[in-house]
Amino acid sequence: MRILIINPNTTTSMTAKIGKAAMSVASAGTEIISVNPSDGPPSIEGYFDEVFAIPGIITEMNKAAAIDAYVIACFDDTGLDAARCAAEAPAIGIGEAAFHLASLVAGKFSVVTTLARSVPAIEHNLVKYGLASRCAKVRSSEVAVLDLELPGSDARRRISDEIARAVREDRAEAIVLGCAGMADLASSLSREHGVPVLDGVACAVTLAEALFKVGLRTSKVGGYAAPLGKRFSGIYASLSPTGAAARPPVRDTLGLTNATSMDRD
Amino acid sequence: MRILIINPNTTTSMTAKIGKAAMSVASAGTEIISVNPSDGPPSIEGYFDEVFAIPGIITEMNKAAAIDAYVIACFDDTGLDAARCAAEAPAIGIGEAAFHLASLVAGKFSVVTTLARSVPAIEHNLVKYGLASRCAKVRSSEVAVLDLELPGSDARRRISDEIARAVREDRAEAIVLGCAGMADLASSLSREHGVPVLDGVACAVTLAEALFKVGLRTSKVGGYAAPLGKRFSGIYASLSPTGAAARPPVRDTLGLTNATSMDRD
Amino acid sequence: MRILIINPNTTTSMTAKIGKAAMSVASAGTEIISVNPSDGPPSIEGYFDEVFAIPGIITEMNKAAAIDAYVIACFDDTGLDAARCAAEAPAIGIGEAAFHLASLVAGKFSVVTTLARSVPAIEHNLVKYGLASRCAKVRSSEVAVLDLELPGSDARRRISDEIARAVREDRAEAIVLGCAGMADLASSLSREHGVPVLDGVACAVTLAEALFKVGLRTSKVGGYAAPLGKRFSGIYASLSPTGAAARPPVRDTLGLTNATSMDRD
Amino acid sequence: MRILIINPNTTTSMTAKIGKAAMSVASAGTEIISVNPSDGPPSIEGYFDEVFAIPGIITEMNKAAAIDAYVIACFDDTGLDAARCAAEAPAIGIGEAAFHLASLVAGKFSVVTTLARSVPAIEHNLVKYGLASRCAKVRSSEVAVLDLELPGSDARRRISDEIARAVREDRAEAIVLGCAGMADLASSLSREHGVPVLDGVACAVTLAEALFKVGLRTSKVGGYAAPLGKRFSGIYASLSPTGAAARPPVRDTLGLTNATSMDRD
Amino acid sequence: MRILIINPNTTTSMTAKIGKAAMSVASAGTEIISVNPSDGPPSIEGYFDEVFAIPGIITEMNKAAAIDAYVIACFDDTGLDAARCAAEAPAIGIGEAAFHLASLVAGKFSVVTTLARSVPAIEHNLVKYGLASRCAKVRSSEVAVLDLELPGSDARRRISDEIARAVREDRAEAIVLGCAGMADLASSLSREHGVPVLDGVACAVTLAEALFKVGLRTSKVGGYAAPLGKRFSGIYASLSPTGAAARPPVRDTLGLTNATSMDRD
Amino acid sequence: MRILIINPNTTTSMTAKIGKAAMSVASAGTEIISVNPSDGPPSIEGYFDEVFAIPGIITEMNKAAAIDAYVIACFDDTGLDAARCAAEAPAIGIGEAAFHLASLVAGKFSVVTTLARSVPAIEHNLVKYGLASRCAKVRSSEVAVLDLELPGSDARRRISDEIARAVREDRAEAIVLGCAGMADLASSLSREHGVPVLDGVACAVTLAEALFKVGLRTSKVGGYAAPLGKRFSGIYASLSPTGAAARPPVRDTLGLTNATSMDRD
Repeated sequence: MRILIINPNTTTSMTAKIGKAAMSVASAGTEIISVNPSDGPPSIEGYFDEVFAIPGIITEMNKAAAIDAYVIACFDDTGLDAARCAAEAPAIGIGEAAFHLASLVAGKFSVVTTLARSVPAIEHNLVKYGLASRCAKVRSSEVAVLDLELPGSDARRRISDEIARAVREDRAEAIVLGCAGMADLASSLSREHGVPVLDGVACAVTLAEALFKVGLRTSKVGGYAAPLGKRFSGIYASLSPTGAAARPPVRDTLGLTNATSMDRD
Repeated sequence: MRILIINPNTTTSMTAKIGKAAMSVASAGTEIISVNPSDGPPSIEGYFDEVFAIPGIITEMNKAAAIDAYVIACFDDTGLDAARCAAEAPAIGIGEAAFHLASLVAGKFSVVTTLARSVPAIEHNLVKYGLASRCAKVRSSEVAVLDLELPGSDARRRISDEIARAVREDRAEAIVLGCAGMADLASSLSREHGVPVLDGVACAVTLAEALFKVGLRTSKVGGYAAPLGKRFSGIYASLSPTGAAARPPVRDTLGLTNATSMDRD
Repeated sequence: MRILIINPNTTTSMTAKIGKAAMSVASAGTEIISVNPSDGPPSIEGYFDEVFAIPGIITEMNKAAAIDAYVIACFDDTGLDAARCAAEAPAIGIGEAAFHLASLVAGKFSVVTTLARSVPAIEHNLVKYGLASRCAKVRSSEVAVLDLELPGSDARRRISDEIARAVREDRAEAIVLGCAGMADLASSLSREHGVPVLDGVACAVTLAEALFKVGLRTSKVGGYAAPLGKRFSGIYASLSPTGAAARPPVRDTLGLTNATSMDRD
Repeated sequence: MRILIINPNTTTSMTAKIGKAAMSVASAGTEIISVNPSDGPPSIEGYFDEVFAIPGIITEMNKAAAIDAYVIACFDDTGLDAARCAAEAPAIGIGEAAFHLASLVAGKFSVVTTLARSVPAIEHNLVKYGLASRCAKVRSSEVAVLDLELPGSDARRRISDEIARAVREDRAEAIVLGCAGMADLASSLSREHGVPVLDGVACAVTLAEALFKVGLRTSKVGGYAAPLGKRFSGIYASLSPTGAAARPPVRDTLGLTNATSMDRD
Repeated sequence: MRILIINPNTTTSMTAKIGKAAMSVASAGTEIISVNPSDGPPSIEGYFDEVFAIPGIITEMNKAAAIDAYVIACFDDTGLDAARCAAEAPAIGIGEAAFHLASLVAGKFSVVTTLARSVPAIEHNLVKYGLASRCAKVRSSEVAVLDLELPGSDARRRISDEIARAVREDRAEAIVLGCAGMADLASSLSREHGVPVLDGVACAVTLAEALFKVGLRTSKVGGYAAPLGKRFSGIYASLSPTGAAARPPVRDTLGLTNATSMDRD
Repeated sequence: MRILIINPNTTTSMTAKIGKAAMSVASAGTEIISVNPSDGPPSIEGYFDEVFAIPGIITEMNKAAAIDAYVIACFDDTGLDAARCAAEAPAIGIGEAAFHLASLVAGKFSVVTTLARSVPAIEHNLVKYGLASRCAKVRSSEVAVLDLELPGSDARRRISDEIARAVREDRAEAIVLGCAGMADLASSLSREHGVPVLDGVACAVTLAEALFKVGLRTSKVGGYAAPLGKRFSGIYASLSPTGAAARPPVRDTLGLTNATSMDRD
């Protein structure tokens, strides 16, 4: 199978690190394609950055061919709902991936992310996914995303300290690392603290393989129905879902449309 | 005071209708400026359309000057979190505005929106805002957004039928109309059904005036902190928050930064 | 428009302070009438005091004429549901008013109130309103209500200390002051702590104006239906809703009655 | 032990019926004293009626002597919180009593009450008590409270029909009758429908006996702390908690006071 | 009436202590029969131990005759759902019993149990029962269950320290002791800390008496329907519900069966 | 890797069907071992049957060697918590597996299970897992578990009818089949109804592979800590966790023990 992993920010070194983390868990027959948009922010820290990354995610989805699953490699699952509308092949965010797998190995987990400003978006996702009751606390280590790329920073120590607090104060039974840039730290931190420590990239890749093997694709009934045939204006004209039905859908009561999906796998 | 009302879609006739609805409730001293982006979808129906409207919202916020409050006039409150980061002057979505005011005049309300595909995003907002327990049901009338602009459509009848069902089956004590394009129907539908019927545009304008009079502005501590100084790439280069701190913030533990806000009012 | 602000306790100096806070935000065309019952407790601190204030609230509502909105100026929104039944003009509690406006400028807020004994009633209101998920914590400063009226008390310092703890420990993005008697402190505390600090009186007055401009009145379908025509006994005989239907309502399935409202605006 | 059962409305025939229901389950050594206030509404149907019944409840509590438990015999548990503040002996509402016992014999129950206007207050109590997740639906039979006293009314049939719907549509495993005036119907309706049917009066009396035997009394730490020593004005002067501390409490951080309880049992 | 109290572990000294606690609150006419299974673990500390205690509980229920109520005397309410299926006479767990009665004397309670490993099961029960919102925190004293039986251990001091923290940090208004083995400590700890301290055994016995007096039995419609007639294999052959219908039930849409109940009271 | 799939009931034809469903999705290198206990019920329909299946699950876990993941193939995830305590290799229930994967391809799903008596246990699991908000409704088709094995029954038609109702009435975007015995129906029902239809067995096997590839094992801190060294009595003597520490654990504050795990993989 072919998995397209989209790092939603424009920092190519992070794309490479994410691709490496993905490869390390991918099955023999799985092809990993890692990309990032050329438009948008160099890192995503909070609500503002997020929204400038999403059109580029869709652009990358459109450019790729014969994809069996999409992984969005930003911990706040930037643009996930739009990606699910855009394709029939499943789309998975690394945040939700880690939350779901953590729920299978622990009663309760805590998240350790980068900056405090990113905490509300993560908390909100947990509520939306239904898994807020499984999360003891979303904690920030006050390490900026791009500092994770700097050799010699004290990033790992700060993250480790926050994990220690989560285990002691929150009674967290597992830890979810709250940034794609922390992918390389998971296994050593797990050994150090004696609890499962989850990196979302690895979780998302194996979940994509799981969905593929079971034959599950995104439901096109309801909120993730294929986009209606509309002509977008200006800089988004080329992203118009014109591959979809050019005329209004015949029936849409349940979100069902006669649109041809824009997904080409 | 000056309120910038942004219709996030590119349909100017809807911008005009929204502006008219806003003017009809605005106080004497309030200046209403209605705009829409030139980039993006002609209407917003579900998760996919939403994300192509948001960068244009920020562009419109940047272009305007001396604004005291922003109103985002799409019922799913498209891009509201990003807009709150972008400015210190308050930003209000018409969806949340209607939910909050409905909670002051009724124990429970139902929403009547356009297409089924839009229902999940609205349900999700209600959960996020905390007001899901006040909403009996989100209902769709299966009227497309732009059909509301068509003379001679059966849009009003369908909406009215759905309201009747909400009052009878959900025990809804008030009705929230789930689309900016329904602004002109609220008062006649209220008389017809004997319950308060709320249009979000009017609600948002008066809430913006309320916040202004009380002197409340968006908190810059936490999730709505001003964007960090980053250089965005490609088509978003001009939206880079370079007006904000060019170097990493000195302390960010609580989301406080030494950044100069990009808000210019 | 005419707003009747009812301080539910019998302390007239507090009524004056509340009236002043209301006037400071009221629009040019708004008439503020501040009253308090002559029967009841001198301050409201907890569940017991509350219930002796409510009949007096209704009495004051009955005495006034041509009122466009009622504001109940006790932070636990004493008697709010009964007031909504009693009138068609909207009734707003200062607690809920502050919670709703805080939700528009911050992701999460904390409340700082007077005594610990008042905390459960406030927590309970938050759950009832649906906004508990927006409130990080309800905190008490252990300042008695009437001590807020004493010159030279350390009330302001205690409240300020508790705000500092809320910002640091709860990650509160805004603070709601939990007593009508704190109305004069909001703006200086906001400057001191760098977060929005909300006083419920100002919030309620501007929300009352908002509802009036939009033309919203309390729904008479369901829980806030006008009282049935009953003859009350004893000291409440004069409060009998005899202005309402003297005979049983014709249909009440949805709380609709053929009763004449007792509201006289 | 001595149980004071207070019917909060002024209809003495209902007080007698309630007393009889209480006697039928009371243990040998239990003395039942049934009273009702002389001030207030003849029946309680919704939020408005409620608040005029509460001062009378406290008056009845004050008049009685050597009481081991108080039962408030209105299904919306009128004034329960204030009653808990007023005494150290436990106070139980018949609504909560039925909800708690229903939770011990069924996974899920539905409530069948009188008028639609009473539904929101009951729903709100369920949320407050935490038991909303155990209640499938609050249903109204559209039988007025005092019609339950009328021979020849179709009240029993309407209630029975609503029970049938609850079992069929809600998958209710038990039924809670939502009015003290339905006490005499529980056992025959249970036989008819093959599910437990609970009357709150019987439940509250046996729970009062349970608390007495275990030696449990209302916590005076927190929300139910004894009223502070205050001088009430006007018609409530005689209800001033002057039996309580005349001076401000020494410490109240946790709601603890040095006040002498006004409870005299 | 006859109450069968089942200590689900095999430690007979604990069975004796539990029986004594039960006798101390039982009414004159109540016969208490205390038993424990001969198969299973000597104490129940967490999910693993639990499941080996449950078949023995059913065995003890089957051996006893003419029982009016069953009490399961392990704080995590081991096997309660199965016990409810097995009998028509009510079955009560000591955990739920304490949670329900605590809710009648306090707004919020905390639980103080034995080991940290037992906390998740208790938290989960609270969510299931609907009473999680009434519980401030489940705390562990790190006292092993059987250490409660040892003279000279520091068990009481550790429990008392944890209670002090609960009152101070959680604002708990009452304390629920989270182990049947703590039954003898409740009243002295209550005097020491000035808040109600509840032992589940006493609570369950008096609730059993309450249900008996009201005539309430477990609903056989839905989740607690009598077991279908099945032939169990191996060591459980003798526990086959063959007393129940040998053939498939005629209708089961609502969980109703034509099975003869296996309950023999 | 080696996956042990335990059908908790004693019906070997169902074990074979489950094994076949598992094999159909397993990766090349995955060995599937399907077993069932010899003690216990022939099918699991509700709370009573469940508890007699669990000791046999543990027995099967103990008998197997070098297992990398355990799958419990009953839709109510019988004994899952105990299985997680018993091993370090991950244990997955087919119910939770389907709920988690459904959450990745649909906003909302409904469950279609066998008998009404099984519904409450499934609803309760959804609440426990946190995913209740993602489930629109748990529906029963009134097909008994073993009827799924009968050729010529109308089981498939009844299930299909219930799916149609779920899509129409619940707005379900995906369907989870609520019984291991329905594994062979998923793909044809998905084609028929145009929505994803999930079988838990396939979901659990691929999730087990995902956890194995990521290197995740059950957390031994907290609720899933290895059993303490205890001597079980009677028929469970051989299941005593004597492989674990024979003496009390040195420290257990966080559920950490010095016990050797009884897991032998």
